[in-house]
Amino acid sequence: MNTESSSLLVKDIGEQGLLQILQRFCPTEIIGDDAAVIATELEQSLVVTTDVLVDKIHFSELTTSAVDVGWRAAAANLSDLAAMGASPLGITVGLGLPGDVSVSWVEQMYVGMTQCLQQYNTPIVGGDVVRSPVITIAITAFGQAYPQRIIRRNQAQVGDTIIVTGVHGASRAGLELLLHPEKGENLSPEETKALISAHQRPQPRLDVLPILWQILGSSQFAIAGMDSSDGLADALVQICRASNVGAVVERTQIPLPPAFVHWLTKEQALEYSLYGGEDFELVLCLPKEPAYKLVQILGQGAAAIGKITNGSTVVLHDQKQEFPDQVLTFSQGFQHFS
Amino acid sequence: MNTESSSLLVKDIGEQGLLQILQRFCPTEIIGDDAAVIATELEQSLVVTTDVLVDKIHFSELTTSAVDVGWRAAAANLSDLAAMGASPLGITVGLGLPGDVSVSWVEQMYVGMTQCLQQYNTPIVGGDVVRSPVITIAITAFGQAYPQRIIRRNQAQVGDTIIVTGVHGASRAGLELLLHPEKGENLSPEETKALISAHQRPQPRLDVLPILWQILGSSQFAIAGMDSSDGLADALVQICRASNVGAVVERTQIPLPPAFVHWLTKEQALEYSLYGGEDFELVLCLPKEPAYKLVQILGQGAAAIGKITNGSTVVLHDQKQEFPDQVLTFSQGFQHFS
Repeated sequence: MNTESSSLLVKDIGEQGLLQILQRFCPTEIIGDDAAVIATELEQSLVVTTDVLVDKIHFSELTTSAVDVGWRAAAANLSDLAAMGASPLGITVGLGLPGDVSVSWVEQMYVGMTQCLQQYNTPIVGGDVVRSPVITIAITAFGQAYPQRIIRRNQAQVGDTIIVTGVHGASRAGLELLLHPEKGENLSPEETKALISAHQRPQPRLDVLPILWQILGSSQFAIAGMDSSDGLADALVQICRASNVGAVVERTQIPLPPAFVHWLTKEQALEYSLYGGEDFELVLCLPKEPAYKLVQILGQGAAAIGKITNGSTVVLHDQKQEFPDQVLTFSQGFQHFS
Repeated sequence: MNTESSSLLVKDIGEQGLLQILQRFCPTEIIGDDAAVIATELEQSLVVTTDVLVDKIHFSELTTSAVDVGWRAAAANLSDLAAMGASPLGITVGLGLPGDVSVSWVEQMYVGMTQCLQQYNTPIVGGDVVRSPVITIAITAFGQAYPQRIIRRNQAQVGDTIIVTGVHGASRAGLELLLHPEKGENLSPEETKALISAHQRPQPRLDVLPILWQILGSSQFAIAGMDSSDGLADALVQICRASNVGAVVERTQIPLPPAFVHWLTKEQALEYSLYGGEDFELVLCLPKEPAYKLVQILGQGAAAIGKITNGSTVVLHDQKQEFPDQVLTFSQGFQHFS
C-alpha cells in the first residue's frame, strides 16, 4: 500500500488527480489523446468483449480485497478472449466511483488488474473515471485471432469429444470457505489455501491456445467451445443449444479439486462443479485424437468428460450406475433484476 | 415506442430477457459468443476510446429523453475517434440498470444510439447488462486509422494555423434553453430549435476526415488536434501543453451560432463558445494552405481562428481592441468528486 495516498479519498484529489495516478499503470506512449492506438497483426481479426462489475452485486469487501477485485475483473475478460481463441492486445477500464472511496483502494484495484494482465503482456490502453454513487468497473478487452482458428459456441459436431481444461467447483468452494471459514475444519491449510486462491485469483486459460494450435497444425476443422465462467452445466447447454446437438457427459470424469473427495458428499461436489461457476476453464469440443492429445499435454485436472451426440439434451450419465441419468439445464445462477 | 413493452420493467424480464431485446440492435452474425469478431483492414492501427455515463451526473430526464441519451453517448465516442483521425468499426455497450427502469427506456436509448451509429455504418458489436443501483452506460468505441494519419494532441508545430470545424457555444446555449425556456423569448422558433438540437443531437465530425485526407494527398506532415467536447478553451490549452507550444487565438474569428449576435452579450457569447463544451467539433492544427482549403470546403461555421506560436500560453487576442488580451486556462467545467 502506498502510504502517501492511503488516507486520501477520491474526492480529495478529483478526477484529474486520480487519472494522473492511474496513468502510471498504462504504457506512457498511449496517454494523453482522445483514444489509444494499438498495432494489430496482419490477417488477424479483432475480437472484443466487455463486462460490467458493480459493488455489492459482483464483488464484496467481505470476500474480495481491492487487489483481488482487479485481478478477477481482468481475468474474466481475458478468459472471454481465450474462449474465442484470441490472444489479448489490451483492455480499457471505465470506472465509476463515489467520492468517499479511498485512492488507495483504486490503486490496489489497478495493481490487481496489472498483476493479472502482465502475465500475458497485456496493457491497460485507456479508460475513463467518473463520479457515481456506486463503484462500477466496466472493462472492454481486445484481442486478435486468425479467422480460421476462432472458437465459437455453434461449431460442435456430432462425435466430437468434450474436454475441460481443469477442475471445476474450486472457485465456488473457495467462496464458501471465505463466507463460512468454519466449514473448512476438515481441510488441510494447503487445501483451504488452494480453494480460496481459485476463487480470488482465477487464471484465464490463454496458455491453452498455443498448445492447441500446435496440436492442430494445419488441420482445418472448427473447434467449438466457451469458458465455464457461468458454470460447467451452463457452458455445456449453451454449446449444445448453439450447435443444435446434444451431449452425454460422464459424471465420474468431471475433474474435481482433490479435497472434494474427503470433504464433500458426491451430490455437493457435483453441484459445485456443475453450477458453482467462475472456474474460468475452457470447455472445448473437437475430434477425439487431438482432444486426448490436448488433455494429455495439459495434465493437471484437464479431462475428456463426454461426447457430442445427435440428440437435443445434455445427459449426465453415471458409468457406475450409482446415480440415474439426469438432463442438465441452465444454471439457476443467472442474475435476476430485483 | 413499442407498446408491448412500454409498461414492463427491467426486473419483470430479467437480464436474459433484456439481452434478447437488445440483441435486435446488433448484427445477427456476432451474437452468442463470449466475444465479438470484427474484420479489420490491413495496415491500419486499432484506435480505442471509452466513456462512462451515469444517471443524474451525465444526463438528466429533465433535458434528455432516452433516445437523446443514446444518441449523445454514441456521438461522444464517435467524436473521440474522429479526433484521432480514425473511422469507426463498432462499439460495445456495458449497461448497469436498476430493476425499476422501464424496458422501453432501455429500448429507446438503444434506438438513439443506433440512429447516430447508422449514419456511419457502425454496429453495436457487444455488451453486458448487469444490475446496478444507478443507470450506468459504459461505451467503448473502436476504429481504425492509418498510422501516418493519426491525429494527436502533441504534434502542433510553430506556425500551424488553428482551425475549428464548426460553431462553438450552441450546445451550452441549447442546454440553457431546456433548463430555462423563458430565456429564449427573443429567439425565433428556428433559432431555439437549432440550439436545442445542437445539445440533444450533436454530430461527431467523422465527415471531416475524408475531406482532410483528400486535401493532404500524399503529404507527410503530422496533424495535431482533438475534439472540443470539454470546451474550445480546454482543447486549445491541451493541444498547446501536449505540443509544448503556445497559440494566439483571434477572438472575433471564433465562429458562433448566428442567434448569439442579437441574443447574448459579447462576454456571454464568448463564455459559451470557449467553456460551454459538448460541441463535438474538431480543433486542428496544420499548415496554412491545407488549413484554409479545409475551412473553405467545410463551410458552415468552419473557421481559421489562430496560429501556433513558440510561446507557452494560449492568448486570446482582439483585433478590434475592444477587449484586452487574455490568457486562456482550462475550463472550470471539470468534474470534481464530491
